[in-house]
Amino acid sequence: MKAVVLAVATILVASQCHGSEYEFYPLELRSDGLTVHYPPEVWCPSWRLAAEAHNYINWKTVPQKCAEYVESYIQGDQYDSDSKYVNQQAYFFAKSIKRNENDVFIFSVDGTVLSNVPYYSKHGYGVNPYNATVYDAWVLKGEAPALAQTLKNYNNLLSLGFKIVFLTGRTVDKKAVTEANLKEAGFHTWEKLILKDPIAYNGQNAASYKAAERKKLTKEGWRIVGNIGDQWSDITGRNVGLRTFKLPNPMYFIA
Amino acid sequence: MKAVVLAVATILVASQCHGSEYEFYPLELRSDGLTVHYPPEVWCPSWRLAAEAHNYINWKTVPQKCAEYVESYIQGDQYDSDSKYVNQQAYFFAKSIKRNENDVFIFSVDGTVLSNVPYYSKHGYGVNPYNATVYDAWVLKGEAPALAQTLKNYNNLLSLGFKIVFLTGRTVDKKAVTEANLKEAGFHTWEKLILKDPIAYNGQNAASYKAAERKKLTKEGWRIVGNIGDQWSDITGRNVGLRTFKLPNPMYFIA
Repeated sequence: MKAVVLAVATILVASQCHGSEYEFYPLELRSDGLTVHYPPEVWCPSWRLAAEAHNYINWKTVPQKCAEYVESYIQGDQYDSDSKYVNQQAYFFAKSIKRNENDVFIFSVDGTVLSNVPYYSKHGYGVNPYNATVYDAWVLKGEAPALAQTLKNYNNLLSLGFKIVFLTGRTVDKKAVTEANLKEAGFHTWEKLILKDPIAYNGQNAASYKAAERKKLTKEGWRIVGNIGDQWSDITGRNVGLRTFKLPNPMYFIA
Repeated sequence: MKAVVLAVATILVASQCHGSEYEFYPLELRSDGLTVHYPPEVWCPSWRLAAEAHNYINWKTVPQKCAEYVESYIQGDQYDSDSKYVNQQAYFFAKSIKRNENDVFIFSVDGTVLSNVPYYSKHGYGVNPYNATVYDAWVLKGEAPALAQTLKNYNNLLSLGFKIVFLTGRTVDKKAVTEANLKEAGFHTWEKLILKDPIAYNGQNAASYKAAERKKLTKEGWRIVGNIGDQWSDITGRNVGLRTFKLPNPMYFIA
């Protein structure tokens, strides 16, 4: 019965909704004559993996049918475990480096060091379209908790003697609240906190803003050893560093 | 009881086995005093995700404790579903491109268009160390089946008018068997099949060999629109193409 309902729903949606083509692979072109639509418990992990590995890009919202899947991923052990694994790799890499005085690790802020799960948990875990006004109001409260695994890694990297640069898409007007929030969450020290100048970077996306700021760092003489972010736009383009680390984030995509 | 056994085993292994540090995050440096070791059903998905998203690199074998996990991943629906999702994204991207006569899609061969699951299923799904002699003997049989989702995508891309280049780490002496195997598996046509000249690329890894061959293609006037592989060494470095697509492969890593 479930299968029948799904099939009918699929046909209905497919015939009405041009924008949802990612779910409806060209039926007319398939060589085997079969049409397999995996159920959400299989399809949603594929969607998440594709997003995490940069195969599925420029997406606007979490698919409605993956709402529960994303919620249980974030609230369960898997998100923490996945975050831990990536942070560990960054730490092991850092340990393998013969450190210089000018070595830095770059961290993105939201979704990387500060968790916005408290916000997203009240806004559909990414199913609801992004609302800048409501999100900014939440940021301005300055109450974002640390992402625990990143905080551990941050402390470990400091212990190894690495300097930390926070490079965030938050705009410069949020400097004070960001500094206070970072400290409150346990991130007590940094070499630089780089926030976005909305005039200088007017019309530029996160990827080009961050690449430009990384170029500046390099010109100033810093060596970017590691670069850790929850978005591919944190870790792609020029001057990404010796190694990059993509923390999991199935709730939103920033270009 | 399980937890106690795990803890004891962990201490024993940690004290004896320096090479397994990826499992034993710096206990002495952790800020919260807690030591959480996730069980394999949580840890193995984190390991796989980290490998797929290029966070965990240069690994030699699948961790023993993930042997069953990888086997059921490969043999169940998830591997097919994950492969389907990535191939779909490549196809949707191809459809969005205003095609030129000199446009190509590059496919890697083993693990991308031809499945080596029949081999790996008899060799521990990546748990056993790689054995070039035994693996080559299997390749020379020429019996690798198509990866079904890639075959569909290949046919779809041909229907759109794109030309196909196969770029493989197989050496030139395997040309005839590779051509025959590709045709037998359903890949009937291609613009080029590029195999590795072991003299010209003596001592170079897959990533530099493939980048050099992509540079040649570009110099010949081809535009690399898409580049699809199951290894990051297929899709990183120079001239990777307008977009790259990483097919899942949790069984081995090629640098």
